[in-house]
Amino acid sequence: MTDKTDYTPPAVWTWDTESGGKFASINRPIAGPTHDKELPVGKHPLQLYSLATPNGVKVTVLLEELLAAGHSGAEYDAWIINIGEGAQFGSGFVGANPNSKIPALMDHSGDSPQRVFESGAIMLHLAEKFGAFLPSDPSDRTEAMSWLFWQMGSAPYLGGGFGHFYAYAPEKFEYPINRFAMETKRQLDVLDRQLDGKDWLAGEYSIADMAIWAWYGQLVLGRLYSAAEFLDVASYKNVVRWAEAIDARPAVTRGRMVNRAFGDDLSMQLRERHDASDFETKTQDKLEENAS
Amino acid sequence: MTDKTDYTPPAVWTWDTESGGKFASINRPIAGPTHDKELPVGKHPLQLYSLATPNGVKVTVLLEELLAAGHSGAEYDAWIINIGEGAQFGSGFVGANPNSKIPALMDHSGDSPQRVFESGAIMLHLAEKFGAFLPSDPSDRTEAMSWLFWQMGSAPYLGGGFGHFYAYAPEKFEYPINRFAMETKRQLDVLDRQLDGKDWLAGEYSIADMAIWAWYGQLVLGRLYSAAEFLDVASYKNVVRWAEAIDARPAVTRGRMVNRAFGDDLSMQLRERHDASDFETKTQDKLEENAS
Repeated sequence: MTDKTDYTPPAVWTWDTESGGKFASINRPIAGPTHDKELPVGKHPLQLYSLATPNGVKVTVLLEELLAAGHSGAEYDAWIINIGEGAQFGSGFVGANPNSKIPALMDHSGDSPQRVFESGAIMLHLAEKFGAFLPSDPSDRTEAMSWLFWQMGSAPYLGGGFGHFYAYAPEKFEYPINRFAMETKRQLDVLDRQLDGKDWLAGEYSIADMAIWAWYGQLVLGRLYSAAEFLDVASYKNVVRWAEAIDARPAVTRGRMVNRAFGDDLSMQLRERHDASDFETKTQDKLEENAS
Repeated sequence: MTDKTDYTPPAVWTWDTESGGKFASINRPIAGPTHDKELPVGKHPLQLYSLATPNGVKVTVLLEELLAAGHSGAEYDAWIINIGEGAQFGSGFVGANPNSKIPALMDHSGDSPQRVFESGAIMLHLAEKFGAFLPSDPSDRTEAMSWLFWQMGSAPYLGGGFGHFYAYAPEKFEYPINRFAMETKRQLDVLDRQLDGKDWLAGEYSIADMAIWAWYGQLVLGRLYSAAEFLDVASYKNVVRWAEAIDARPAVTRGRMVNRAFGDDLSMQLRERHDASDFETKTQDKLEENAS
């Protein structure tokens, strides 16, 4: 333990706006809007306000899978919410999600617009709406729901815990890195044992696989926090096999592209998505890039 | 920032079994069972394996509310899982919940026993099974589901983040305490704004209220981490009002008692619950204690 401390917490916590690391500007102890800004509304019943982080990708992967499976009612407009610039604190976004986190969905298919927030709730809303990507077998469905909730309760240790302290905190604090690395590896081992001899987490490809893939699948594929070696992700062989199978699905690639405005590969960045043909332009970009 | 560090993470993380703070003995980077031990099975269709932590209390509160509302099919046996002694790593428990966390439910009401794990999944399973404590209005139901998932994704910052670093870590690390105190206060403010002028989070008393009450309600009632003053919980007046209303419900008090084996108030400790009459014994204990 090299980070010995003589810190004593005060009686009452107060906000020191100077500290906080890479995301200090977007972490606040206060909820609610910071400015007035309405959300744009496009032509489809489903309006998504998001960003291609793992929590955002979960939903766009599901929407693209629904469309690929023939559920044309899943056509959607996806608007980018730049959380680095505080767009999640605009009044319209806070109305859609009082928690000021992406993704948020507004479903305009009923009598009045319905907000749905938290990625797990959005996935369940869509899976039930279209009767797809939840197992029809009741036992498998219950198992899929357990895994969906597992993802929601586990990933904060990966993202808000491990990822923050390993990649984003202003200093490398040993104790938190150890704490959250241990828990992340335990979670990977939970998945590795569940996927032993199985293609999918719960009977068939479902929202549980998509949700968990967005975090743990992308982690073992080396896409999160430059932590593949540190966590020895290659040792979780069943997770890697499963993650690669999902990654090979065209709908998953499209889902990863939507609302992406970061990374080196510009051909993967579709800032907004309003029509299936929007991907063709990017594919054309990619072909031209490869040819040049 | 008093906890400056010159720590550099190694290339590959390794398990140092010496570190870890209060819960070092139960935090492991490996999943799966550590020993063979079958789970006991009682007389009712619903078999709960749990402990009266906030995640455990969520489910026992719901079961007691279901019984109080006349759903006699919700009769259950509640067996204590002592996580400090590693009971969550027994082979039977791991079979019920591969994530080795309480609570786990085995539902024996179908053709074969059905495992359900993650407290949110268990609550949804029971609410749907009995058609209770989820709003019948579709819009309110969607809103309740958003809040249920909000609880699952938010409480890790309160429990695994703030609670761990403020109350349990081997030293007081300033940066993590600040990070997670800020997030916990933001979450309390999210709830305070949602509950402004409202009795319940989503139209009517639902599993969303019960789940969130178990963490944030008990936090503002001063029951978690001795942190009431530090977080100035009294300033979240709507949350306090809502928490007190829930706390006054007899079913909630019963739910808090089940699988409790810690704290000063012995009359609140019902280690196992197998019949509604089990509470009467404790009530008699309490009367005698008050009389003495």
